[in-house]
Amino acid sequence: MRIIVIGASGRVGQDVVKDLQANGDHVIATSRHPQNLGDEQIALDLHEEAGELAKQLPDADAIVFTAGSGGRDLMGTDLDGAIKTMQAAKQKGISRYVMLSAAYATDRSQWQTPAIQSIRDYYIAKHYADLYLINESGLNYTIVQPGTLTETPATGKATFADKQFTDNAIPDVADVITQATHANNTIGKVILMHGGDTPIKDAIAAL
Amino acid sequence: MRIIVIGASGRVGQDVVKDLQANGDHVIATSRHPQNLGDEQIALDLHEEAGELAKQLPDADAIVFTAGSGGRDLMGTDLDGAIKTMQAAKQKGISRYVMLSAAYATDRSQWQTPAIQSIRDYYIAKHYADLYLINESGLNYTIVQPGTLTETPATGKATFADKQFTDNAIPDVADVITQATHANNTIGKVILMHGGDTPIKDAIAAL
Repeated sequence: MRIIVIGASGRVGQDVVKDLQANGDHVIATSRHPQNLGDEQIALDLHEEAGELAKQLPDADAIVFTAGSGGRDLMGTDLDGAIKTMQAAKQKGISRYVMLSAAYATDRSQWQTPAIQSIRDYYIAKHYADLYLINESGLNYTIVQPGTLTETPATGKATFADKQFTDNAIPDVADVITQATHANNTIGKVILMHGGDTPIKDAIAAL
Repeated sequence: MRIIVIGASGRVGQDVVKDLQANGDHVIATSRHPQNLGDEQIALDLHEEAGELAKQLPDADAIVFTAGSGGRDLMGTDLDGAIKTMQAAKQKGISRYVMLSAAYATDRSQWQTPAIQSIRDYYIAKHYADLYLINESGLNYTIVQPGTLTETPATGKATFADKQFTDNAIPDVADVITQATHANNTIGKVILMHGGDTPIKDAIAAL
């Protein structure tokens, strides 16, 4: 598949690019300041309007959104930037869209958790971006919602279920995103990801 | 009418409370730290979830939203706080909702204006709050979108049209909000407000 990874230079994005390439995909890596990633690079500024983003994006079979501002530009990047890439995808006829979100971004009943309270504005941004993707984008979406991202080695395992908020190793999150992008049974689903004992391939097949 | 003014202690809110009372309305004034405003006061923290806000709000005929964080809490107040009051209104069966927004918040083609570029994050927050009100809230809304607010005396006049971005005296904005709240012909409309020569009463009647 030809896959655009938006936010390719980010912590998760870099791993997703490598995993997709290892899978045989052709990866178009976008970031604000392009680095030597993927098979093609595009400089993309998410502050552009959706119509301009649509002009700058190439044709592709899917978009994977892994961009994040690290809390420095939640309105412009994590919320508005994300939604505009959905609108650009729709305009270009790229119907498959995979979003890196955060555990319980769509379930406010869990927001009293200290791990969420401490980054509440980030959750608000992800919340409305996810809701737009689900309710208004018209795209064939998958939303991956991991717990706290850790820079630890891959375990190759996960649990997709509603359980206590946990950490997830970044390479495991990238693995889930990569496999979900190719698994049509994940379309229209929110994958709530926790640490666990199920091989990721089996967990995705069971969705 | 029984009217809840959310953000009653703000610059526009205070004038709206006075105008509504002068009009004979019963005003329930809400703010985070209640002041001696309106006929009743309620302490309302917009960081509460929508269900909790619905419990705290009294019955009323309309809600007027004039709260704003002054750029200090755009995610929690201007965006998420606003949307949760819409959800609370819907839960309580308060179907009439009047929103103080900002000129062109729903028209991104105008966002290159320097006055908007300088407060872009504020515009993103107002944009998605307005879109929720229009597309998802299920409320009988009116959205008032003035230009730059100035602490100058009332002119009693305005223009409701698409023209160059201008200033609006705060008492004129409060006047438009107050009259619009009582004018059923404003339901379902976005009032783009500029300075002008038409008496506000006539401008509203012509909508």
